[in-house]
Amino acid sequence: MEKFYKSIESIANTVGELESVNESCFLKNNRDNTLIPDRKEVIKVIKDLQSLLFPNYFKHSEGSENVLSQTELLLNIYSRLSVQIKGAYAFGGTPMSKTPEEICDTFVKKLPYVKEMLIKDIEALYEGDPAAKCREEVLICYPGFYAISIYRVAHELYILGVPLIPRIMTEFAHEKTGIDIHAGATVGEYFFIDHGTGIVIGETTTIGRHVKIYQGVTLGAKSFEVDENGNPVKNIKRHPDIGNNVVIYANATILGGNTKIGDNCIIGGNTWLTHSVEAGSTIYYSEKNK
Amino acid sequence: MEKFYKSIESIANTVGELESVNESCFLKNNRDNTLIPDRKEVIKVIKDLQSLLFPNYFKHSEGSENVLSQTELLLNIYSRLSVQIKGAYAFGGTPMSKTPEEICDTFVKKLPYVKEMLIKDIEALYEGDPAAKCREEVLICYPGFYAISIYRVAHELYILGVPLIPRIMTEFAHEKTGIDIHAGATVGEYFFIDHGTGIVIGETTTIGRHVKIYQGVTLGAKSFEVDENGNPVKNIKRHPDIGNNVVIYANATILGGNTKIGDNCIIGGNTWLTHSVEAGSTIYYSEKNK
Amino acid sequence: MEKFYKSIESIANTVGELESVNESCFLKNNRDNTLIPDRKEVIKVIKDLQSLLFPNYFKHSEGSENVLSQTELLLNIYSRLSVQIKGAYAFGGTPMSKTPEEICDTFVKKLPYVKEMLIKDIEALYEGDPAAKCREEVLICYPGFYAISIYRVAHELYILGVPLIPRIMTEFAHEKTGIDIHAGATVGEYFFIDHGTGIVIGETTTIGRHVKIYQGVTLGAKSFEVDENGNPVKNIKRHPDIGNNVVIYANATILGGNTKIGDNCIIGGNTWLTHSVEAGSTIYYSEKNK
Amino acid sequence: MEKFYKSIESIANTVGELESVNESCFLKNNRDNTLIPDRKEVIKVIKDLQSLLFPNYFKHSEGSENVLSQTELLLNIYSRLSVQIKGAYAFGGTPMSKTPEEICDTFVKKLPYVKEMLIKDIEALYEGDPAAKCREEVLICYPGFYAISIYRVAHELYILGVPLIPRIMTEFAHEKTGIDIHAGATVGEYFFIDHGTGIVIGETTTIGRHVKIYQGVTLGAKSFEVDENGNPVKNIKRHPDIGNNVVIYANATILGGNTKIGDNCIIGGNTWLTHSVEAGSTIYYSEKNK
Amino acid sequence: MEKFYKSIESIANTVGELESVNESCFLKNNRDNTLIPDRKEVIKVIKDLQSLLFPNYFKHSEGSENVLSQTELLLNIYSRLSVQIKGAYAFGGTPMSKTPEEICDTFVKKLPYVKEMLIKDIEALYEGDPAAKCREEVLICYPGFYAISIYRVAHELYILGVPLIPRIMTEFAHEKTGIDIHAGATVGEYFFIDHGTGIVIGETTTIGRHVKIYQGVTLGAKSFEVDENGNPVKNIKRHPDIGNNVVIYANATILGGNTKIGDNCIIGGNTWLTHSVEAGSTIYYSEKNK
Amino acid sequence: MEKFYKSIESIANTVGELESVNESCFLKNNRDNTLIPDRKEVIKVIKDLQSLLFPNYFKHSEGSENVLSQTELLLNIYSRLSVQIKGAYAFGGTPMSKTPEEICDTFVKKLPYVKEMLIKDIEALYEGDPAAKCREEVLICYPGFYAISIYRVAHELYILGVPLIPRIMTEFAHEKTGIDIHAGATVGEYFFIDHGTGIVIGETTTIGRHVKIYQGVTLGAKSFEVDENGNPVKNIKRHPDIGNNVVIYANATILGGNTKIGDNCIIGGNTWLTHSVEAGSTIYYSEKNK
Repeated sequence: MEKFYKSIESIANTVGELESVNESCFLKNNRDNTLIPDRKEVIKVIKDLQSLLFPNYFKHSEGSENVLSQTELLLNIYSRLSVQIKGAYAFGGTPMSKTPEEICDTFVKKLPYVKEMLIKDIEALYEGDPAAKCREEVLICYPGFYAISIYRVAHELYILGVPLIPRIMTEFAHEKTGIDIHAGATVGEYFFIDHGTGIVIGETTTIGRHVKIYQGVTLGAKSFEVDENGNPVKNIKRHPDIGNNVVIYANATILGGNTKIGDNCIIGGNTWLTHSVEAGSTIYYSEKNK
Repeated sequence: MEKFYKSIESIANTVGELESVNESCFLKNNRDNTLIPDRKEVIKVIKDLQSLLFPNYFKHSEGSENVLSQTELLLNIYSRLSVQIKGAYAFGGTPMSKTPEEICDTFVKKLPYVKEMLIKDIEALYEGDPAAKCREEVLICYPGFYAISIYRVAHELYILGVPLIPRIMTEFAHEKTGIDIHAGATVGEYFFIDHGTGIVIGETTTIGRHVKIYQGVTLGAKSFEVDENGNPVKNIKRHPDIGNNVVIYANATILGGNTKIGDNCIIGGNTWLTHSVEAGSTIYYSEKNK
Repeated sequence: MEKFYKSIESIANTVGELESVNESCFLKNNRDNTLIPDRKEVIKVIKDLQSLLFPNYFKHSEGSENVLSQTELLLNIYSRLSVQIKGAYAFGGTPMSKTPEEICDTFVKKLPYVKEMLIKDIEALYEGDPAAKCREEVLICYPGFYAISIYRVAHELYILGVPLIPRIMTEFAHEKTGIDIHAGATVGEYFFIDHGTGIVIGETTTIGRHVKIYQGVTLGAKSFEVDENGNPVKNIKRHPDIGNNVVIYANATILGGNTKIGDNCIIGGNTWLTHSVEAGSTIYYSEKNK
Repeated sequence: MEKFYKSIESIANTVGELESVNESCFLKNNRDNTLIPDRKEVIKVIKDLQSLLFPNYFKHSEGSENVLSQTELLLNIYSRLSVQIKGAYAFGGTPMSKTPEEICDTFVKKLPYVKEMLIKDIEALYEGDPAAKCREEVLICYPGFYAISIYRVAHELYILGVPLIPRIMTEFAHEKTGIDIHAGATVGEYFFIDHGTGIVIGETTTIGRHVKIYQGVTLGAKSFEVDENGNPVKNIKRHPDIGNNVVIYANATILGGNTKIGDNCIIGGNTWLTHSVEAGSTIYYSEKNK
Repeated sequence: MEKFYKSIESIANTVGELESVNESCFLKNNRDNTLIPDRKEVIKVIKDLQSLLFPNYFKHSEGSENVLSQTELLLNIYSRLSVQIKGAYAFGGTPMSKTPEEICDTFVKKLPYVKEMLIKDIEALYEGDPAAKCREEVLICYPGFYAISIYRVAHELYILGVPLIPRIMTEFAHEKTGIDIHAGATVGEYFFIDHGTGIVIGETTTIGRHVKIYQGVTLGAKSFEVDENGNPVKNIKRHPDIGNNVVIYANATILGGNTKIGDNCIIGGNTWLTHSVEAGSTIYYSEKNK
Repeated sequence: MEKFYKSIESIANTVGELESVNESCFLKNNRDNTLIPDRKEVIKVIKDLQSLLFPNYFKHSEGSENVLSQTELLLNIYSRLSVQIKGAYAFGGTPMSKTPEEICDTFVKKLPYVKEMLIKDIEALYEGDPAAKCREEVLICYPGFYAISIYRVAHELYILGVPLIPRIMTEFAHEKTGIDIHAGATVGEYFFIDHGTGIVIGETTTIGRHVKIYQGVTLGAKSFEVDENGNPVKNIKRHPDIGNNVVIYANATILGGNTKIGDNCIIGGNTWLTHSVEAGSTIYYSEKNK
């Protein structure tokens, strides 16, 4: 019994210490946790959006099963997303000029466009992969399509200026597929990703039409400009531009905000590129044997 | 209130537009969604198969907890898998000559063989990794074993000609472990994968006995033959053959249907190989410092 | 009906065969499965620990929602973790000299220190990534922080000698983020991981202060010493030492127990290193165009 | 093993026999069970209606928790109730002249009236029971109010001619409270039920304003008229009429379609009445001691 | 903080005291709670049996949803019921001569007979109640049928000598419907119960064919014979015998093991009977007005 | 589409009307629903208290399954109950002089006494019912014991002056068993209830030791004193006093605050009593036949 008390005492002390660490901490001490965007809820919203776009292939999230019609589902998404956006506003750098509902109104109107883009992506995946037996297989199984479908939705929220929520969405895609497309990247139609694990596409990347990217490819920043305090300068172009009809094979790394890959290039696997490449080039990596 | 109606109107319009996109779409307009294989259900089946093979180490899927005996569990798997296979038939390229039940009869009889193979894989992982303290650790924690155990089950369905289901299974393994072994690949006994994130093993790969593969390795296609329409030719050998007792270190890339790695080779990390290598070779990658 | 019986018979036979495989197997035939650590339960414990450390940003695991105070939560974690540690003892190489409760007492007292370390990691991530708009974003979205937060907790259990449990915890982080930090590695303060998919950090690695590591980096073993039976020798230094203020870019591979990267080095992406590098060096990888 | 097969055989035989019983049965052999009203779903609808009427005191049903606004909730109820009414149509005696949606339109418009009636019932319960400390207690705890709130909703569906659904609703109230008010009964404002277990109020009963009824009271049928086949004649007045300001104490039984209890009567406990009683009467039951 | 410790101390003391009460208690101190029949599990079994008997009208219990065929369902019930019976054996007065599996074999073979009996009960309820619009309504809504369907199943287990389980089943019916039919009672075909709340039918009651019973009726024991220690003598006839074609109206009470109600009697509501009644009698209760 | 809008409009109008009913209502317009006691949570607390008192026979409520030790369980109950009591304070007639924590401290200390009382009740039920085969059967199956176990806990909160919570607890027992014992009643040791459906025991009732009560018994109020406004006077003695060793058979009704039933009386079934009865009397009800 003595021992039991000592454990309790130790535990209560530890909790006290943990709280005092908390107080000395640099976070906004948000005690009212209703204002913090809820990661689980944002994930439910993105799942319900996938279900809205392709109702036979994606299921409603748990808790939305008894929403019967598509109109109800979208109404439901609309309200829940508004709440999350409201929560996110506290974390944005600059004050927002629009209400969460105005953001959602505009966002909702973009969904048919998003669906059209995604149908083109399915086409690109089906035609580009010899292993795909039918288009439905792409919808049901392909992690590349899963990640793109979330990216295209999140991107629309990103360009409306919504903080944090688009990132939570693309991080969810990252967790499920190992594919990390920043919601700020600009990606043209007929985008093809195969296998995909380890792909990183940075915030200021632009990608043209009919581009194919394989697993392990990084489209990243070369080095960061730092300000007078040694901190990275934010909001500048840091990632490459990829033209149309480019193929980038597995584990290639392309870095830098001034790096431009011209149309119709082929970038071989495991290559490392920090300068621009003219249209029509083929870059490959030579091997050596012992 | 005015505003509320405008939102409702906008939402109902959007749903209408989404449905008209749907109608213009190239998918078989499958309204009766009972015929589409259910990804969640296939995942439950594969989890229950893992539990059947190693009952003390893998738990039943949610919803199967009150199936008490192993015979019941297998009966249960048998019926649920038959339903999913039936659904998958609509998505296969060619009509199937066997009923789902006949497929399942044959499949079920292969399970003891699968278990024997997996026990050999456990042995290989235990002996090959200095960090493994006991064989049970491999069963409980190793993502490599998790992925192989799903691959070996899915492969049996693949060679029985079942469409879509084997791919859904291996994509689940991919999602959980970052290891993407196509169900069509042929993999010999005592297979060893460590860490594993980013591994890609293509559909027509063959791998011998006692092979070790580390994270980020790709056994892929070099380029695709295209037909007269510029589409990739399907169903041809596109991925390499790996001999017995080969070790392939992290991030190596081996490509092409005619690429053969002979027995007892060691392929160094980050290497890039598109041609064959004789038995007994060591290929490594030389580094340069500035 | 005939057919139905044949299926049942086949199924019952298969179960019999599966069990006879089981009997011939090399595993300790643990029939009493209460003694095997429960992966799901360990994952709930690590989630509850995250929630204890940062209550506004991580939710309680399912089933712990109605634990009201922090003291109760920690009491609850304490008991559940003790049970799992007890189960793990059967799988350790050597008998333990302390009771699970004594282990937990010591572990609990380390939590405030873990929290201080994690706050420094948040600072490093916020300052090091131009895309981070506020520190809370790091806590909510960054897979790098998610993986480090689990590693730092698991490491405390590892150094207390607990078998299996720390590995289950870091494998959970691996599954969620693609980042595989062995609980045995030693990592200094202000650790920065971005994107992270495919990172592997081996058991005997040491990492200094203010180190930045990008996706696909391996800090691994070069080759294993084998004993007279050809099995790898366990418990020896196999992985590199990384100094302070080092940056290691994407897909670099650094191998070997005698490999030391000195302070203030920059290791370029896709490099391959198996020897030591002096302090202040920059190693990069030169590209070639066709 | 022999024994196991015999059990399986016995079980399969039993299932065969059960199915052959089924075929000889007088039920419409409904194989397509989507047409049968779903008791669980009807119960969820009635719970959501209670939550709509008194949002702070009744919770949403499971599965409707993330419906955010009252308008959404009512839209949701509207669609789900329509589906159930459609299913019920197959079980009604006569074909329906209105669509389920038309029924629901009318029903929904009656809800504010239902709420007004229920507020009057709360008032009656609060004022009539010395044990009630505040009106909220009536809403939260009183089984009498629980049963009345379901009855008043179900009654509106009954008078719109909906088969089966109103009965499922009032049977749910019966199960929860032991109070069985047929949805066809007509009940005036300020209705008071205390304790309530065992109360039965038949289909053709009418009850005036400000009536109080205690546990175990039956307002039932005396005997049934039978037709030429000896079956009870349906759709005739079978149950009593109760005037205004009547009090009926515990376990009283009042039977018959021609039995009228005038205004301001008091009917003592355990009494048995099969004839009419003039306004202003007090009926009591005399006791005898041995 | 002081206060907090005092609460903890008080709580720990209370738990200690509760345990010491436990030790002084007369219960078999069953520490191994796997041997105690699990009420929740027995309820799931009875729900699954209802679903087996009338698959379109009763749903599977939670956790059995993915059992697909009727044969599987019955296999599943068979194993789970065996486990519960095994647990119950410890609580029976006398050692059992049959194994739980032998009991289940016999029980399962009785199910088609039970279904035939229940179809006759449905017929009786449909024909006897003017409010019933179709036979399906009886299956879906009538508490009387719900209670009888559980009683008839439980009775078969009772006559096989199973302790405790039949009682748990009929108490579940009691909880849901307020109708308490002891599993030991013998009830003939075409049994009719309307409303039903408060009905009690004792263990040694016998009831003939075509009997109708209304709410609040007790068929009970008059007084108990006591043995030399003043304890009631168990296992003797204590409850009445009811003939064929008898009607017993609401709240009638019939008591005693020697009380026999002859065929074709009508027993009026609220009557009290402790002696036998000749066939063809009508017993009623006279009322008095002030 | 037109029709769809009309439905939406109708629904939105209805919600508006419902809200305007709300505003005109006499309830405290409690917008902040955290202050209203949560019926579901109170029910979980009472279930956990039953589990604390008899851990092998009652299960933890959903959500408390992973609370491991009895001390933790009680700590957990303590905090959750404090929250509910705090919410209840707003609904009490008079301001409370003690904090919820002080109430809970006192309450917790009474639990061992409650357990001792309940063990005596089990003894009374086992000895009094010839159908009980062992004491454990009483704990597992008897609704009478279920109701008493909740009453005895709720009564301790009632005498500490907690509003609303004790009533929610006993209404839960009422719902499950049909037995309605007001938490304010005073009940002596060795209390026996059999069958129980329809029993009502009023707030100011007192009951001695070794009393047996059967189904349908009412111990109620005769009539209420009304104040100058015609409202019932609250807080006066309204219900009878029952002596020691009294037996009250089924459906008896005993009314009035001045009615005293002396020790050792037997009150026959269906009797109606509004005056006192001397010790040792037997009251029965004579029957008449036509």
